Amino acid sequence: MTQLESAKQGAITPEMEAVAKGEGLAAETVRERVAAGRLVIPANVNRRTAGLVGIGEGLRTKVNANIGTSVDFADLATELEKLRAAEEAGADAVMDLSTGGDLAAIRRAIVERSLVSVGTVPIYEATCEVMRKSHRLKEMKAAEVLETFRKHAEDGVDFVVAHAAINREVVREYQSTERVCGIVSRGGTFLAQWMLQTGEENPLYEHYDELLDVAREYDVTLSLGDSMRPGAIADAFDSLQVHELMIQGELARRAVDNGVQVMIEGPGHVPLNQVKAQMELEKSLCHGAPFYVLGPVVTDVAIGYDHITAAIGGAIAAASGADFLCYVTPSEHVGLPSPEQVREGVIAARIAAHAGDIAKGIPGASEWDMRLSRLRRGRKWEEQIRESIDPQRAASYRAQAAPHDKSVCSMCGEYCVFKMADLGAQTP
Amino acid sequence: MTQLESAKQGAITPEMEAVAKGEGLAAETVRERVAAGRLVIPANVNRRTAGLVGIGEGLRTKVNANIGTSVDFADLATELEKLRAAEEAGADAVMDLSTGGDLAAIRRAIVERSLVSVGTVPIYEATCEVMRKSHRLKEMKAAEVLETFRKHAEDGVDFVVAHAAINREVVREYQSTERVCGIVSRGGTFLAQWMLQTGEENPLYEHYDELLDVAREYDVTLSLGDSMRPGAIADAFDSLQVHELMIQGELARRAVDNGVQVMIEGPGHVPLNQVKAQMELEKSLCHGAPFYVLGPVVTDVAIGYDHITAAIGGAIAAASGADFLCYVTPSEHVGLPSPEQVREGVIAARIAAHAGDIAKGIPGASEWDMRLSRLRRGRKWEEQIRESIDPQRAASYRAQAAPHDKSVCSMCGEYCVFKMADLGAQTP
Repeated sequence: MTQLESAKQGAITPEMEAVAKGEGLAAETVRERVAAGRLVIPANVNRRTAGLVGIGEGLRTKVNANIGTSVDFADLATELEKLRAAEEAGADAVMDLSTGGDLAAIRRAIVERSLVSVGTVPIYEATCEVMRKSHRLKEMKAAEVLETFRKHAEDGVDFVVAHAAINREVVREYQSTERVCGIVSRGGTFLAQWMLQTGEENPLYEHYDELLDVAREYDVTLSLGDSMRPGAIADAFDSLQVHELMIQGELARRAVDNGVQVMIEGPGHVPLNQVKAQMELEKSLCHGAPFYVLGPVVTDVAIGYDHITAAIGGAIAAASGADFLCYVTPSEHVGLPSPEQVREGVIAARIAAHAGDIAKGIPGASEWDMRLSRLRRGRKWEEQIRESIDPQRAASYRAQAAPHDKSVCSMCGEYCVFKMADLGAQTP
Repeated sequence: MTQLESAKQGAITPEMEAVAKGEGLAAETVRERVAAGRLVIPANVNRRTAGLVGIGEGLRTKVNANIGTSVDFADLATELEKLRAAEEAGADAVMDLSTGGDLAAIRRAIVERSLVSVGTVPIYEATCEVMRKSHRLKEMKAAEVLETFRKHAEDGVDFVVAHAAINREVVREYQSTERVCGIVSRGGTFLAQWMLQTGEENPLYEHYDELLDVAREYDVTLSLGDSMRPGAIADAFDSLQVHELMIQGELARRAVDNGVQVMIEGPGHVPLNQVKAQMELEKSLCHGAPFYVLGPVVTDVAIGYDHITAAIGGAIAAASGADFLCYVTPSEHVGLPSPEQVREGVIAARIAAHAGDIAKGIPGASEWDMRLSRLRRGRKWEEQIRESIDPQRAASYRAQAAPHDKSVCSMCGEYCVFKMADLGAQTP
């Protein structure tokens, strides 16, 4: 039985217990939200991981790190290094988005080594296989696509992206719509091109019930891909994006009705003033299903700094209801990230998630700030650094500009406001 | 005559013309807003700088970089290097916050070399002088404090912070208020301690009219310091902060009535959900005076990443009405920044300002994103990088993970969505 089926029957599973404990909630609260489709616990029956997390209503906002090879850089060892970097930086999940090298071997290595939940995008493998064999996308068969999902499920993947909501109707609308950046989802592009070339319906949409059967068998959580997510802020909230979101909502309902855990993938490039409304629309159209957003980045111009543009959008998104933030690394839009960039991306996303959690009043969130601020006020430097989000970085910056007087920092020196306040109290 | 006096008399100055031209506004619009105290043009009569900017209603959000020595690091050459780094990264203004070394010589060197507006905090010099001489803050005389403001004005400083709103009443309230981090403004701490030790009123409050006389004589823009800004998110929006903001509002009205340009300094540490309300309260209590915010940072826990926490808060602030963002560097809270950290801080603040400008519909803001996105869609890599916020960084990241096929990037390689769309159109 899936977590959702158990929850519907009123049963609290060990996974629900673990999530409840980690979040400081009653297990029954977690069960209720799982049963309602507002909370998912990605945990493949073939891999009930130690680091499993809940994603959804009332929980701490979670962070995912995308790793994986490309055609240009297809080295497993580097990807495992990125996996370690992501885990050490505090990612709650990783996704293997590999498109280069032996995809099955890479996936299995990542699933085996990962201490956190693992997601994949099976359509990548289906496409890369057919391209490797024939160099003709149109040769891909619907049955092959579904088979790839089964393989990933068997391998123990906890959540998979299914671009099921980009159907022929959406593609038709796409053909008559002006967009600055068209389709920027890789999976969406594969399927749109395939539909245009074959004239056939998206197999993930047409055979959605079969997909649900596979997902239910292994309790793989579906992440309904947003093929039409805006790839430029000018494309945000256009009719294509909203049309697909409505279909994602229908498919989410069908998943929940069939005992399959499901979340919704979201944008993308979104101007700051639209972020809140985007979150609210998803919650409404998708019946409260957890929202997994990719950033969003709030401007297109900051190449090299998209961990920051995504932290801005992600923080507002989290504060407005997003449940799961996909990190964006500094090298987004120009190249595959290095392990160090993976680390930078995870920390930036964790900052965004935490800022959102403070804003939405997640239990324990602002208490962290209170602990650190009390240590700051008390000039407890070592303890303050230990309590910070990345103690190693904090310590290195303090060391780089070390003060002569260790009770202060080198910015203010003897004019440290906390020291002055302490001494001032002693002034006769 | 000051810009404000000219504007009130209906005269459009060359500085108003220059600001209007740079912003794509009518000069008369700029004049009206200057006259109403909703827009300032910091431009000391002794230094009508080439790089002058307007700050306020309807203008592009501006960015300030704090530089300056500390007791631990008092090297002028390094500070001039930071000045250059800030200018090259695109700062609209710099503030010299020096507290170490020969303060007058450092200030004059920065004023002389700077290509952008320069601000200072004269109370630092007044305090450092008395501490150097006697090590007893209480020895500082009211006349000396005012004299320091005159010296800075004579030296050509364009805007000065005046912590005039922390009066005895506020300090009394402070003594009976529980706060996690007390007073975190250095200038505010100097004055609060001095008031507590001498029992006298804050000279900047008591002799505010004299301060206005100096400011009017040189057309120095006053930045009314917020001594009670929250230094921990738990302290945000407490009665101390709001009490001082009300006094800032009264003092701003008096400045405008006396022909002195004025802006309001703001927080600080503010949880994300309060940022918008903080901006709205300032605009209301301070009669639309330009708001100059320090960050705000939206969490206390991210030591080493406060350029990111400030970018989150700054973007929301800018979108909600803030006019001027003071950058925060990655080394904030642990040490004096390096030139590289100055650069990181400026770029992060510029990203925040631009994201806010898109949101509030500043003319030309989203057009930048449109230009870049069109180049991105067209796979015009060199042009796209040239158009980005930091072309050097963008180019280096692309080079670090260089693709074999120069028409794509190494993340997707042959599966580049834009290339596939281009090729797809050619498929029979």
